[in-house]
Amino acid sequence: MSKSEKVNFSTPSGFPEFLPTEKRLEVYLLDIIRRVYESYGFTPIETPAVERLEVLQAKGNQGDNIIYGISPILPPNRQEEKDKAEKGSETGSEARALKFDQTVPLAAYIARHLNDLTFPFARYQMDLVFRGERAKDGRFRSFRQCDIDVVGRRELSLLYDAQMPAIITEIFEAINIGDFLIRINNRKILTGFFQSVGVEASKIKACIGIIDNLEKIGEAKVKQELDKEGIATEGIDKIIEFIKIKGSVTEMLDKLKHLSDSMPEAEQVKLGVTELETVINGVRNLGVAENRYCIDLSIARGLDYYTGTVYETSLIGHEALGSICSGGRYEELVGVFLGEKMPGVGISIGLTRLISRLLKAGILSPLPATPAQVMVVNMQDDLMPVYLDVSQKLRKAGLNVITSFDQQKLGKQFQLAEKQGIQFCVIIGSEEAQQQKAALKNLKTRAQIDVAINELAAEIQKQL
Amino acid sequence: MSKSEKVNFSTPSGFPEFLPTEKRLEVYLLDIIRRVYESYGFTPIETPAVERLEVLQAKGNQGDNIIYGISPILPPNRQEEKDKAEKGSETGSEARALKFDQTVPLAAYIARHLNDLTFPFARYQMDLVFRGERAKDGRFRSFRQCDIDVVGRRELSLLYDAQMPAIITEIFEAINIGDFLIRINNRKILTGFFQSVGVEASKIKACIGIIDNLEKIGEAKVKQELDKEGIATEGIDKIIEFIKIKGSVTEMLDKLKHLSDSMPEAEQVKLGVTELETVINGVRNLGVAENRYCIDLSIARGLDYYTGTVYETSLIGHEALGSICSGGRYEELVGVFLGEKMPGVGISIGLTRLISRLLKAGILSPLPATPAQVMVVNMQDDLMPVYLDVSQKLRKAGLNVITSFDQQKLGKQFQLAEKQGIQFCVIIGSEEAQQQKAALKNLKTRAQIDVAINELAAEIQKQL
Repeated sequence: MSKSEKVNFSTPSGFPEFLPTEKRLEVYLLDIIRRVYESYGFTPIETPAVERLEVLQAKGNQGDNIIYGISPILPPNRQEEKDKAEKGSETGSEARALKFDQTVPLAAYIARHLNDLTFPFARYQMDLVFRGERAKDGRFRSFRQCDIDVVGRRELSLLYDAQMPAIITEIFEAINIGDFLIRINNRKILTGFFQSVGVEASKIKACIGIIDNLEKIGEAKVKQELDKEGIATEGIDKIIEFIKIKGSVTEMLDKLKHLSDSMPEAEQVKLGVTELETVINGVRNLGVAENRYCIDLSIARGLDYYTGTVYETSLIGHEALGSICSGGRYEELVGVFLGEKMPGVGISIGLTRLISRLLKAGILSPLPATPAQVMVVNMQDDLMPVYLDVSQKLRKAGLNVITSFDQQKLGKQFQLAEKQGIQFCVIIGSEEAQQQKAALKNLKTRAQIDVAINELAAEIQKQL
Repeated sequence: MSKSEKVNFSTPSGFPEFLPTEKRLEVYLLDIIRRVYESYGFTPIETPAVERLEVLQAKGNQGDNIIYGISPILPPNRQEEKDKAEKGSETGSEARALKFDQTVPLAAYIARHLNDLTFPFARYQMDLVFRGERAKDGRFRSFRQCDIDVVGRRELSLLYDAQMPAIITEIFEAINIGDFLIRINNRKILTGFFQSVGVEASKIKACIGIIDNLEKIGEAKVKQELDKEGIATEGIDKIIEFIKIKGSVTEMLDKLKHLSDSMPEAEQVKLGVTELETVINGVRNLGVAENRYCIDLSIARGLDYYTGTVYETSLIGHEALGSICSGGRYEELVGVFLGEKMPGVGISIGLTRLISRLLKAGILSPLPATPAQVMVVNMQDDLMPVYLDVSQKLRKAGLNVITSFDQQKLGKQFQLAEKQGIQFCVIIGSEEAQQQKAALKNLKTRAQIDVAINELAAEIQKQL
């Protein structure tokens, strides 16, 4: 067999793939995330990877994203069908492209199935999304996002906002990645405050974007950028002072209420503070531990569609990783295709990036290369019917089992098991077979005992 | 808010999406399939949706498939980067496209990670694949395939072939879709027999493709097509007679051994029969019930890379659905990028298509629209702290719970619960709250009882 020497079989730049040890970690994390999402009644959906380009570009939501368009490549024997098969499929009304986030597709999904859904509609979605990012700085061009959103028709209780920190807390406690802090803010407070210090309405979004980078670029640079936007020095000082207010949740709410009382003309601030208080009370009633969340007025979320509550989550001691789970409340996003007001609130975990960074930082470890917990080794080929039967018995008891089909030296088989992280080897020679028993070797403890074949599964479960 | 009236928000033709009731069924089936795959030690991998075009086209494996190429669409504010950002990304050496199956990417994955993998390498993969099929006849342009393959270096025991029918049986028994039959054959027997009746070597693959359609197109049409290939009438009659041989597994093996003994020059037939017997013995030793599988000499699998064992699975009474799980043994597929012989055996479940057809045929039913089993209803807003607390208690006990945040008439809340398939409503008024109890309404049985809040989770688990 000759090698296809000219083929570059590496992955295309920016399109990552995991080793089995890492992919198993992803599967494990997806199970945890799904379990928590479902425990709050979120239901799964999956929108196609491919949408109409006009859907992805609706309301200018392409943002800064480079979208990947798709176009058919016919096999050599069907070239004559070109232009006929999928007319206008590359440009124009039939142009299609890969989704770059889950939010625009959610809006389309709701529009497509409006009458089949129950509102508030709470869904989770853990699909791949695609962005033509520059493939450096750990940026991926395809990655899995684990999103939840709950969407109402016309109205949506702020208690949905309160559930988000409870959900984030449960997930990251279950993943066991150390201390984390959910930072909560409300965009109305920021918007209102900016108005009150004289920032023009047209510049508020830009200013929010700037202060959102406080942690990343530092205070001096924030001042400089606000100055560039034409904000008066006095205003800048007030803004910086404001977003640096610190304190416990209770203290922050007190300070904000005082501030809001002192600004009777600032409707937005008052509204934002009231919303924030409702959300925080909900978070408390949901039993989220006080050390898991705080009010941070510098949190804004860059995306311009957020209108109320916003969240970011940082891993304490690893703040450089950036936010590991973010989101917020929006009003005018998912109703775009229906022309209806559909407020929503959601969060997103960028799982591919998170795993890759947590592995690199040594915060999470890869799992064993195989889900198998047991290897039934091959002592002699003529006992294969016994090995197959024992393997099936163990599987029926819920264990994951590899039967060793190749007759190799026992040491070599143990080595193969160990290399893959298989904890147990079951050893049956002709004598054991006759006596309906097996030697059970625990590769972790190096202990080996004789067990009746009937009791093998129970013994392994015990030692697991 | 004005409607984006001009946007066609429907899914692009051929790109399906499920309602939550259907997607939940898919998630449920994926869990079953994964559990069975893992119980045999298959480990998960996921290759990128996007590969280099030259990888997908290596060894002519594009076959008849229309592949979707991808190319970046820059946002309006970054048009000037075009040509600079991703040079040569649409054509030439950097051209990329969406994968159309899981096998070519598996070959690339093994080549990319050869030294990090343990052989035999047993992996499962349940990703989306993309094909530019004509979007009719229930053909999808993106669909999920649940594949397993085990790949050896140079050699691979035939007992891996024997495991496949055991795996198929466990999956479809767990899914509970009624009687099914796994039809097993060996391509070497077919190839050898065709040679023996005088079919030229260059025409054997075409002839195998023709007889593979026996069930679909009928005997007369098969004869006609073999005739078109220039096979002599006598040869055609022998072929038809041969592929129609019927009998129990034992009878078939006997007949095949006799046949093979009567054709001492037909090396391939002898080899195929020996392989088939080894596989069948393994299937028996794995305890697969006799009524689940048979030997069917008309099964060939269209794909030309199969070289030994082949499988198809039909749903009894619903044969028109086609094969619900197919696969086989191949020699020269996954080693293509390494120039190494890497025999493998695998099966594939085309899950998206399967679900869509089983739903349509009424063989499977969609699940309730939400994973929530319990709704804590809202009797009065001031009791919300109690509702939130009770909801959390139930979640901690492993239940999926929706808290009703909107204060609506009780009947309306029950209706909402029922519409989504939520089985239980927890009703707490101020009196119940004071007494630390709740009314538990089972919407299935219509029974309502009073339960202490502390015992609520246990009572619900009991009634589930």
